Amino acid sequence: MNRLERFEVNILGCGSALPTTKHFLSSQVINLRSKLYMIDCGESTQLQFRAMKLNFQKLNHIFISHLHGDHCFGLPGLVSTLGLLGRTADIHIYAHADAEKLFAPLFRYFCKEMPYKILFHAFNPEKSELIFEDKNVSVTTIPLKHRTPAAGFLFEEKPRSPHIIREMIDFYHVPVSRIRAIKEGAPFVTGEGETIPSARFTRPAEPPGKYAYCSDTAYYEKIIPIVEGVNVLYHEATFSSADLARAEATFHSSAAQAASVAKAANAGRLVIGHFSARYPDEQILLREAMEIFPHTQLAYEKMILKV
Amino acid sequence: MNRLERFEVNILGCGSALPTTKHFLSSQVINLRSKLYMIDCGESTQLQFRAMKLNFQKLNHIFISHLHGDHCFGLPGLVSTLGLLGRTADIHIYAHADAEKLFAPLFRYFCKEMPYKILFHAFNPEKSELIFEDKNVSVTTIPLKHRTPAAGFLFEEKPRSPHIIREMIDFYHVPVSRIRAIKEGAPFVTGEGETIPSARFTRPAEPPGKYAYCSDTAYYEKIIPIVEGVNVLYHEATFSSADLARAEATFHSSAAQAASVAKAANAGRLVIGHFSARYPDEQILLREAMEIFPHTQLAYEKMILKV
Repeated sequence: MNRLERFEVNILGCGSALPTTKHFLSSQVINLRSKLYMIDCGESTQLQFRAMKLNFQKLNHIFISHLHGDHCFGLPGLVSTLGLLGRTADIHIYAHADAEKLFAPLFRYFCKEMPYKILFHAFNPEKSELIFEDKNVSVTTIPLKHRTPAAGFLFEEKPRSPHIIREMIDFYHVPVSRIRAIKEGAPFVTGEGETIPSARFTRPAEPPGKYAYCSDTAYYEKIIPIVEGVNVLYHEATFSSADLARAEATFHSSAAQAASVAKAANAGRLVIGHFSARYPDEQILLREAMEIFPHTQLAYEKMILKV
Repeated sequence: MNRLERFEVNILGCGSALPTTKHFLSSQVINLRSKLYMIDCGESTQLQFRAMKLNFQKLNHIFISHLHGDHCFGLPGLVSTLGLLGRTADIHIYAHADAEKLFAPLFRYFCKEMPYKILFHAFNPEKSELIFEDKNVSVTTIPLKHRTPAAGFLFEEKPRSPHIIREMIDFYHVPVSRIRAIKEGAPFVTGEGETIPSARFTRPAEPPGKYAYCSDTAYYEKIIPIVEGVNVLYHEATFSSADLARAEATFHSSAAQAASVAKAANAGRLVIGHFSARYPDEQILLREAMEIFPHTQLAYEKMILKV
């Protein structure tokens, strides 16, 4: 996959509430056509960002699923570090409206002489809505069912350019300067005045990728139609079915419930994470999910998922 | 050294502003007679606390030198984690008055159902004052010279009990139940009515230990009389003398300046830290300091200093 087609998810942390010597707190960075989009920012996210050799300058948008500390306490440190690195481009933070009330005073106090602006964009986690769009991707919220207002995020890649058929370009002596227009659908007029449609020079690109992030949430049927057909679904699986009562009490999911969502939604693959520290061997969670949805993987720190 | 005599400093992080793959941000934990006292709490402090196998239940007091993010952004995560671990004893945070204004709203929002209280104690970093005392230690502030109000901390151990001379105890048939009183200075009356002074049964303990933490600060002569005669001085050495202009502009010290303070104060040892990320080889800082004060060591993560 060349850089322009890349759609990868970097797992920076996939533990739950308490950081352990095994797992960092929730954070992921989506690398889509060489732009970076962060989902959640638990404490120490900036350490993992650096450890995964991601480029701070390519990060412009941060999406926060909900305001529990393990999903956002890394924001002040990350924002400071971006400033110290001399960043000038704005950073956009998409989150529940309370995020600005809580973090803006810290940013004002600690990051007084920042060379860039931090712009908060509040969304309503109760409804599914398009909250961000650029030429590469659209981001839609996925209402979740948790102890505090929470939303997942559906990242839908914009259609890719078709592939050029090199032989046809050579055959018609198409100058290099015309190739971009042809890829975008323009016909080509030959020296003899013949008009050749774009489709003769191209074959369709792979269908655009779709990635969904659902954490934290109890089992919630309303997720299913929104994530229908995603290539990869990341769904929290904090507990095993043996601890279902605990899962229900804390509005988290079991691995089996995560798998049921993936199955009902016809996901291509399921990646489970947000593991409770009570399972020294997470294979129990993996087996439980695979019984229902075989294409399941355990998330781990520094995992790179190709969508 | 047995547990009751222990006086150790655990270095959790000794980097400056930016965390790197080599250094964590500023934090130290003093273990004094099995009670823990934290100095500064940069992001990821709770990770290092766990990695050093320190006991969260033994931590009750946190001292924050100044309100720059690299010295305090770990507080919300640490406070949350203590709550999740079921702590019930209060936590005391000693800091500039602004700390409460900045962090209390976060604690209220994110740590709603905490089983313990967080009590802020404001101090004035402009003057040296006793801000804490228990039966083991007293803590006095050391005014520093930085871009924001800042104070270091002088930890002075309370006098230790004298050592019992086992042979004398046996000779006079002193019952075990009397030993504690004798250590505290009470005489012993023998069966024959003879009064033996406490000093016959004991030899003096080692003199109490003194540890001083000075970070962040420019070179500042007023530190010297306050830290006079400490066993160990931790002094920041962000820069080398070659970057003195940068040190002065940012109100930090060079390694040579840190060594000058240690020398003038007749410190037993100097430990330098808060290293700028610009020095891949910190030996340059060590050599520079040792030219002035030979008993110098570089701090490093997971270092345990015996005071």
